[in-house]
Amino acid sequence: MSDPIVESSAAWPEIVKRHKDASTYPAGVAYMDGQYLPMSEAKISVLDWGFLHSDATYDTVHVWNGRFFRLDLHLDRFFSGLGKLRMDIGVDRREVQSILEKCVALSGHRSAYVEMICTRGTSPTFSRDPRNAVNRFIAFAVPFGSVANPEQMKRGLHVAISQTVRIPPASIDPTLKNYHWLDLVKGLFDAYDQNAETALVLDYKGNIAEGPGFNVFVVRHGKIKTPAENVLLGITRRSVFDICGELGLPLSAEPVSISDLKAADEIFITSTAGGIMPVTRVDGEVVGNADVGPITTRLTEIYWQKHEDPAWSSPISYPVASQESERA
Amino acid sequence: MSDPIVESSAAWPEIVKRHKDASTYPAGVAYMDGQYLPMSEAKISVLDWGFLHSDATYDTVHVWNGRFFRLDLHLDRFFSGLGKLRMDIGVDRREVQSILEKCVALSGHRSAYVEMICTRGTSPTFSRDPRNAVNRFIAFAVPFGSVANPEQMKRGLHVAISQTVRIPPASIDPTLKNYHWLDLVKGLFDAYDQNAETALVLDYKGNIAEGPGFNVFVVRHGKIKTPAENVLLGITRRSVFDICGELGLPLSAEPVSISDLKAADEIFITSTAGGIMPVTRVDGEVVGNADVGPITTRLTEIYWQKHEDPAWSSPISYPVASQESERA
Repeated sequence: MSDPIVESSAAWPEIVKRHKDASTYPAGVAYMDGQYLPMSEAKISVLDWGFLHSDATYDTVHVWNGRFFRLDLHLDRFFSGLGKLRMDIGVDRREVQSILEKCVALSGHRSAYVEMICTRGTSPTFSRDPRNAVNRFIAFAVPFGSVANPEQMKRGLHVAISQTVRIPPASIDPTLKNYHWLDLVKGLFDAYDQNAETALVLDYKGNIAEGPGFNVFVVRHGKIKTPAENVLLGITRRSVFDICGELGLPLSAEPVSISDLKAADEIFITSTAGGIMPVTRVDGEVVGNADVGPITTRLTEIYWQKHEDPAWSSPISYPVASQESERA
Repeated sequence: MSDPIVESSAAWPEIVKRHKDASTYPAGVAYMDGQYLPMSEAKISVLDWGFLHSDATYDTVHVWNGRFFRLDLHLDRFFSGLGKLRMDIGVDRREVQSILEKCVALSGHRSAYVEMICTRGTSPTFSRDPRNAVNRFIAFAVPFGSVANPEQMKRGLHVAISQTVRIPPASIDPTLKNYHWLDLVKGLFDAYDQNAETALVLDYKGNIAEGPGFNVFVVRHGKIKTPAENVLLGITRRSVFDICGELGLPLSAEPVSISDLKAADEIFITSTAGGIMPVTRVDGEVVGNADVGPITTRLTEIYWQKHEDPAWSSPISYPVASQESERA
């Protein structure tokens, strides 16, 4: 018989000092703890309350052709969210702006999806009291992504209405940008089950609320409307209001019923991830004449033109080497 | 004038290859990607949808005196959650049990808080479609923690009722253990503002739902009740049902109004993090005669006795060295 102590220890796996990570990460640069890092290093502890309690707020701004789009509005909303959650990131607005710019510049991306995050963090004394936590600020820039791919942009997205109810304002302030998405994920799987490409979920009154990461607009007889309540007040949503104001197009924030959606001449969705995107099918039925509508097309064109407008966008300084490699 | 290229590059921070992490972590062992790791290495990417969309489920079992408490019930609930979220962790129930046991054994903790997690993960192609994600299984064992500290266990917790409404079942299935906690965090800050130690939040009908990580029970004229709807079906809650069944104490799951709470002779809360814990103040008013009540005390005693009962608990095999160091 062998020594039972040896037998026992032989059965135990070793504790590996460093996690060996075989995952793939997008090209990009993150900022954390004063350090600029490759995306593969941008990780948070599983003990961070930002994960364990989804106790976090964030914002995502995009960069197009080397320019931030409406960065000020995103910073406004991010700092407003920090206040609502009583979080302190230890850096001011100017510093956040500088960090975001450095993430983009160091990444070399001319078109980027740029996220700023604050998590509750953890308590150094392992207390359960969130007031004792050291809040954690993270930022990163990765390649620009869109809800709709080029084919969907051309022929319009196919959406399905899920009976899932978006988390109501009495539970979580929808103007606080947050990661509570399981209702939207449920909606998405419901939509896939109906062979649709994305979903719309309901508000707590049974009207249309929003979709996974986007607001929705309907056009009927030249009038445009979008849900007022139980939705994130998206910056792209706001841009549609601003553009409609400039063009003199009638737009109002008011309840959008399922019937309104099904009777629409045009439907479009809005998100920082893709801008203004057409919808041409709802629950398998065609919207209007089945093509991307003229108002959707006009708004989309102006939305992208605004990306060169200094009133709506601001240039990023890139390292010279990066500019040169981009030219090459 | 100096060379503009040199001047420009000098202004740019370097990209650090490895994140330097100055945070403190509790003693413990985690499992991820087939590796057993110190808690400092148990991290997820900020791009993991488990973080970005709180698209994750989990369960927490505790170990007391070297024995798992009701592990089977926690595994049942965890695997049920995986099914509801259409996630696949790639290991079966027996393997999960073995991994949890190894995390505890390697940590050496005789009393531990043991968490099993599945996150949606990320898509290797960076698609936005959750069906393309590689789900991520993580487990860890850290020292046992409690909602109530020893002083609070003796004199009872002071709670405040927040007007925040727990996320309703129409939005997120409350039987799916999830990290959507911002409503509970809001409740907690509301409670702190009233000099209370923890919170109770309401259900969507205006009755009492639950608190941050716990269920609540009220005792009035010897009868016990606990909310039936809009609450997590806690394993400790279930244990109270089982113990009341054995003792022949009347207990029912039915609406608990704010008046019920304020008229209670005794109140207690239940959580894996602490077991059965007394509440002796609600909104600054004393509960019953201000002391921990006899039913609460009796149930708490039996709850802890059950931790030695083979029908309710199962022993963990520790490495011999660890057993010896514990004895020393």
